[in-house]
Amino acid sequence: MEMDLNCDAGESFGLYRLGLDEEAVPLVSSVNIACGFHGGDPRVMRRTVQLAKRHGVSVGAHPSHPDLVGFGRRALDATPEEVADDVVYQVGALLAFCRAEGVRLNHVKLHGALYNQAATDASLADAVAAAVRSVDPGLVLVCLSGSAMVAAADRAGLRHLEEAFADRAYAPDGQLVSRRLPGAVIHDPGMVAERVALMATAHQVRAIDGSLVPLSAQTVCVHGDTPGAVGVLRAIRARLAQEGVRVRAFGAGEAARC
Amino acid sequence: MEMDLNCDAGESFGLYRLGLDEEAVPLVSSVNIACGFHGGDPRVMRRTVQLAKRHGVSVGAHPSHPDLVGFGRRALDATPEEVADDVVYQVGALLAFCRAEGVRLNHVKLHGALYNQAATDASLADAVAAAVRSVDPGLVLVCLSGSAMVAAADRAGLRHLEEAFADRAYAPDGQLVSRRLPGAVIHDPGMVAERVALMATAHQVRAIDGSLVPLSAQTVCVHGDTPGAVGVLRAIRARLAQEGVRVRAFGAGEAARC
Amino acid sequence: MEMDLNCDAGESFGLYRLGLDEEAVPLVSSVNIACGFHGGDPRVMRRTVQLAKRHGVSVGAHPSHPDLVGFGRRALDATPEEVADDVVYQVGALLAFCRAEGVRLNHVKLHGALYNQAATDASLADAVAAAVRSVDPGLVLVCLSGSAMVAAADRAGLRHLEEAFADRAYAPDGQLVSRRLPGAVIHDPGMVAERVALMATAHQVRAIDGSLVPLSAQTVCVHGDTPGAVGVLRAIRARLAQEGVRVRAFGAGEAARC
Amino acid sequence: MEMDLNCDAGESFGLYRLGLDEEAVPLVSSVNIACGFHGGDPRVMRRTVQLAKRHGVSVGAHPSHPDLVGFGRRALDATPEEVADDVVYQVGALLAFCRAEGVRLNHVKLHGALYNQAATDASLADAVAAAVRSVDPGLVLVCLSGSAMVAAADRAGLRHLEEAFADRAYAPDGQLVSRRLPGAVIHDPGMVAERVALMATAHQVRAIDGSLVPLSAQTVCVHGDTPGAVGVLRAIRARLAQEGVRVRAFGAGEAARC
Repeated sequence: MEMDLNCDAGESFGLYRLGLDEEAVPLVSSVNIACGFHGGDPRVMRRTVQLAKRHGVSVGAHPSHPDLVGFGRRALDATPEEVADDVVYQVGALLAFCRAEGVRLNHVKLHGALYNQAATDASLADAVAAAVRSVDPGLVLVCLSGSAMVAAADRAGLRHLEEAFADRAYAPDGQLVSRRLPGAVIHDPGMVAERVALMATAHQVRAIDGSLVPLSAQTVCVHGDTPGAVGVLRAIRARLAQEGVRVRAFGAGEAARC
Repeated sequence: MEMDLNCDAGESFGLYRLGLDEEAVPLVSSVNIACGFHGGDPRVMRRTVQLAKRHGVSVGAHPSHPDLVGFGRRALDATPEEVADDVVYQVGALLAFCRAEGVRLNHVKLHGALYNQAATDASLADAVAAAVRSVDPGLVLVCLSGSAMVAAADRAGLRHLEEAFADRAYAPDGQLVSRRLPGAVIHDPGMVAERVALMATAHQVRAIDGSLVPLSAQTVCVHGDTPGAVGVLRAIRARLAQEGVRVRAFGAGEAARC
Repeated sequence: MEMDLNCDAGESFGLYRLGLDEEAVPLVSSVNIACGFHGGDPRVMRRTVQLAKRHGVSVGAHPSHPDLVGFGRRALDATPEEVADDVVYQVGALLAFCRAEGVRLNHVKLHGALYNQAATDASLADAVAAAVRSVDPGLVLVCLSGSAMVAAADRAGLRHLEEAFADRAYAPDGQLVSRRLPGAVIHDPGMVAERVALMATAHQVRAIDGSLVPLSAQTVCVHGDTPGAVGVLRAIRARLAQEGVRVRAFGAGEAARC
Repeated sequence: MEMDLNCDAGESFGLYRLGLDEEAVPLVSSVNIACGFHGGDPRVMRRTVQLAKRHGVSVGAHPSHPDLVGFGRRALDATPEEVADDVVYQVGALLAFCRAEGVRLNHVKLHGALYNQAATDASLADAVAAAVRSVDPGLVLVCLSGSAMVAAADRAGLRHLEEAFADRAYAPDGQLVSRRLPGAVIHDPGMVAERVALMATAHQVRAIDGSLVPLSAQTVCVHGDTPGAVGVLRAIRARLAQEGVRVRAFGAGEAARC
């Protein structure tokens, strides 16, 4: 059994530091690196690619709406064409740092509001899948499990991973519980670890009402920017090891392309 | 005999239109496409790559300091590392649109103040040459003729073209006459065409004092954003045809790489 | 009888030119000057305030969502607090140029998507009205006729003008016909002029189905950035003169405050 | 005897936190609030004005070159007109938050590279002084002691304060020792406090060679963004109290204007 653990990284900007990249990156198998539209800048991008390389962690691009002051968290009414072009631009920028550092760019995961919008809007999702494919058909698209993004990646003939969230509550219908509701985020490292183990071994999640819900996930998102992040990551890894689940990036064994 | 004619393009931004891309691009052999730091945005970049493809014109990236409001024309005291990272980012962004459109990215030419700073500062020039090489060692660096950039490209083992300016006056020492001095810019299409012909056939330019000065140039920069640009371009092409000089991008005959 | 004619101005940015400010500003009584978030920059703002002063035209701020590449035309899911702070910032920036040039800042009119969002979202409208009032309680808020903005200005105790659009079709319920529908924009100068005259003299508009609809408007928005703008403006002024309607900014006769 | 202690504040941006504003602001008499060009955003600006108000600390604007990614620390070859317009814009934006919060805007202090450039370039200094005066002739300009800014403020008829740096070494000619040289920054709280006391009581500073140098300073800059900042601030205040020097903003006793 295998599971990919991914976290966002490279979200610092200029003098501003954000996230615990140095501590968290060595504990995951994939990182989603910001590309300058919601966080990250060219220097941060290079340093983060170098950090991932040093720890043998798989690298992905983490494109966003252009909204630095809002950290890409505000829905923007952009057209599918605008979103596609923004994605191509950002993926290309990160791809260049990967080439410069001799690292393969493995995947693309949308950030923040754009991730949420494309998870439910099929035309945005199709635009994103086609954009990613047009830059490199070997890229893997990370998609919210069961979302419009999964269907769009299928239509585009693009490899994809379904993603679950380690510390987020799920409703009985398999949807994420809104962050605004009580109990939406789970903080206890042991509980989070147990949830991830269930996702990896049984393809299920215990919903907020206690029921067991099927959940397809080949990658689990963990946070690298909260105070307890490292403790949670260590708990997850220990629990997965115990269950015989190997933490490993998708396609990590393939020959590098660059 | 051959000569490359290059012009800047894709410098529009959002709703703002700049330049006569539709008219000028068909008349040159290479375009330098803005990458979003001084002009250009993801949508403009895609449209400009498509335009170049339609006319069989060779595509290059045109990176700049990050200074949209100053159009990249103001010297910025950035470190060589900052400049290198800014160049990698921008070249990568354009490279992705080239891949998306099935076009080869052929060259890189710096824009505005960054072009001028790197022409005289060897550490900036070395940083730029290494940055370009790190993204793709097959890229061609367009350098001001006789400048620090030429030496840096040589040190980096990077192919390069020396560039002359069609409508700019030269001093007897082969340097460009400052734009602030009278006579620095030549407007008459016939005179500009004659100068380009002399550059192409005799590797010389008539300096502002009337003397003939040796000038090494494999590409000549023409402007695509002035009212008379199209007339000047037509005059240059007619004159070069008369002299038996073929207008052709460097390496245009090689197999495309992407 | 009096009517204010307002148009947007100062939407150029850096090297980029947009609009026919030199031609249109002399023909209106009020200008809405962009404040840098969707267009405009500090130099353009100063020049536009100077232009308005030269022609005795009343000056207003034209704040927007921060979206230069989208020209402020894309809805953004910003909170009322974010919008309020963005409005304070932009109004203050323009106020400073007014002080520097010895001109009174008279009004505030939202731009683009923010104008549309605040016209229907009472919490955004309240945030905007309170923000404007907090900078200067003497400012006039320009509101879409009959919208949530009018009610919010009333609640805030802020003077306001209801706005109609000279060249836009209205539905029988008094709402604007969506730009995406045929006939939404009226191009004929004579027809536009006649509509404005009816608004000014009878407080009515002829709806797209031919019916006469009551419309409260103390200011009419005209466009200064379309090819025919000057012709339309001249036609409106001629027709209003014929009807005995004076074109005049709201409060233009009051003593200047700065 | 009185001395003003000033520190920079409000340099956070969006999600990014920078500086120890909550701890440092209560310990100074004046704050220089970033205005969005190198740090700060509308929300941060409002919160920082509120923080200063809560602690009765005098508020100033801290304008910069537009360079968020470089934090305004990189020299930019902007014209005096560009700098003047950038200063008017930023001062106005902060002025609006002061009005909104019922706080007087007291002073203006340039940030980073712009501070350094205007300290030696008389045409930039004149442009800045005129720009500040044009927004509000009652504003106080904070100038590097003995610099071109002092002379420019005099020429403009603008009130000004000469500024010294609490933790920076001085050369025997009264100039700051470059940060790149060893010993340029003094970290020991006791030593820093002693230096400030000498500035306040004897108008002198002990230069790096041990000699005593005359230094005119009505305000001393302390840092609010370093780990030991609070300790240094407490040491300075204790020592000044011991010497009978009152820590107080310039003009703090005057009636508020807004």
